[in-house]
Amino acid sequence: MNISIIGLGLIGGSVAKDLRKSHFATHLIGVDASEVHAEEALRIKLVDEVLPLTEALAKADLVVIAIPVDKIRAILPTVLDHIQSGTTVTDLGSTKQRIVDAVENHPKRRNYIPAHPMSGTENSGPSAALEGLFEGKIAIICDQEKSGPQHLALVEKMFQCLGMNIAYMSSDEQDHSTAYISHLPHVAAYALANAAMAKENRHIIFDLASGGFNSTVRLAKSAPSMWGPIFQDNKSYIIESLDTYIKHLKEFKDSIQNDESRMYELMENATKIRDVLGGANPSLVKNEEKIIKLYTK
Amino acid sequence: MNISIIGLGLIGGSVAKDLRKSHFATHLIGVDASEVHAEEALRIKLVDEVLPLTEALAKADLVVIAIPVDKIRAILPTVLDHIQSGTTVTDLGSTKQRIVDAVENHPKRRNYIPAHPMSGTENSGPSAALEGLFEGKIAIICDQEKSGPQHLALVEKMFQCLGMNIAYMSSDEQDHSTAYISHLPHVAAYALANAAMAKENRHIIFDLASGGFNSTVRLAKSAPSMWGPIFQDNKSYIIESLDTYIKHLKEFKDSIQNDESRMYELMENATKIRDVLGGANPSLVKNEEKIIKLYTK
Repeated sequence: MNISIIGLGLIGGSVAKDLRKSHFATHLIGVDASEVHAEEALRIKLVDEVLPLTEALAKADLVVIAIPVDKIRAILPTVLDHIQSGTTVTDLGSTKQRIVDAVENHPKRRNYIPAHPMSGTENSGPSAALEGLFEGKIAIICDQEKSGPQHLALVEKMFQCLGMNIAYMSSDEQDHSTAYISHLPHVAAYALANAAMAKENRHIIFDLASGGFNSTVRLAKSAPSMWGPIFQDNKSYIIESLDTYIKHLKEFKDSIQNDESRMYELMENATKIRDVLGGANPSLVKNEEKIIKLYTK
Repeated sequence: MNISIIGLGLIGGSVAKDLRKSHFATHLIGVDASEVHAEEALRIKLVDEVLPLTEALAKADLVVIAIPVDKIRAILPTVLDHIQSGTTVTDLGSTKQRIVDAVENHPKRRNYIPAHPMSGTENSGPSAALEGLFEGKIAIICDQEKSGPQHLALVEKMFQCLGMNIAYMSSDEQDHSTAYISHLPHVAAYALANAAMAKENRHIIFDLASGGFNSTVRLAKSAPSMWGPIFQDNKSYIIESLDTYIKHLKEFKDSIQNDESRMYELMENATKIRDVLGGANPSLVKNEEKIIKLYTK
């Protein structure tokens, strides 16, 4: 199968590695707005060839779009315009509602599967691509009733080749949940990094930085070019999650200051996350059937 | 050397493992308020024997106190009362000022080295003890001028046996820096866990929980019995750090809502933490001399 990947960064590159390894892809075509990235992707053999967009679309059985969400929104109508009638298109962006809105009335809407594979690292670019990045993680497929069954089946098979479990929900549900799970922790990390770097004693702070600090601010190293458009696309749910978070921070702060027993209640409540996330070494839910059952509409 | 460890949990137990392995300890004596923990520590051979406090103190060349900070503060005067005149005492608590204040005028104050080895996990109890937990991490030693040089040398040697680099500063500086590096990320994690668990769609959120969320809330699994006393002991600096953090969160929120270019400025600033922490795979400063030079008074 010919697969064209638009965007040869961390996500697109990692998909390429696993789809080649699993023999799901027989020929991988790359498209990238950056010539430097395109050359790098060719050099490290992420893809077999790099082509201009329209040529890559004309040759593809499956098109995978792995670029920032604002650029997905901008390019998706053009992609659907240029594919052959039987070609399947999916995107891997972290937000969905504004993207699906952009092609709601497109004549090839049923060729398109809105998706969000929940995995990543704080690094970017072709050289950041990792084999097995998606293994055991969850891919969200949105609004499945609006896609053709053969296109849905192909994208499901692709995620299975990546080792992923699949959850089905509406674009709105995905954006709401993802605001809390993924977008809020990124905002929190950016703000924590800025708060720590604003201190006068920052040189001591960073020389001493320990495990807890490093794991919390790790996400603050993520690329603004990827995350800025996500924050803008999912603005209302992210603001909601931030308001909730700030409210809980203030409540915790007040309890430290004025009400020790309330402080312990809040901590005891928070530690319940150990059970919710599955103990000391949380692993993602691995049982595909369970996930499908929970979220199939 | 006979070493008595008061508190056989994650920290005390991990110290025991490494001090035995490095032959720094020839005989390890354990003290624990919990009979269950004491028996477990004996069973898994963390210590050679468990004794009542005063007997353990009478036999010790070195006493290591690894219990919650409020309990360190309460027991430290008694410990200094009962040790022999040449015995060295250190504690491993995450806060220092209120602890050193509690023994400021004790006749054996020079036998005591206030310390804080910066390492841990979110787990607790004797079975959570890990070999190599402290390897490559930083131990802070406070107010060194108030301790006798032979006691200081022994504790430095102990931390070297644990594979640690040593930083020297005042108790006040340690409490101020640690508020940002360690205590604030813990409060942030507790609040994030509570915010996420308060949502109606929490079952979806947690089934989908991904890497970023897990690494951010990991700290929320930490034991309230250990962290509550830390938050109370270091209240004023933690409130300061929380105010700074909340201010930066609000600024980030406002920028998402109203000022996209400001949002990108804030993100670009935050990503500088990549350089400050040493790139994509931050490792703690390993050069002991550098640390000693930076922070020796």
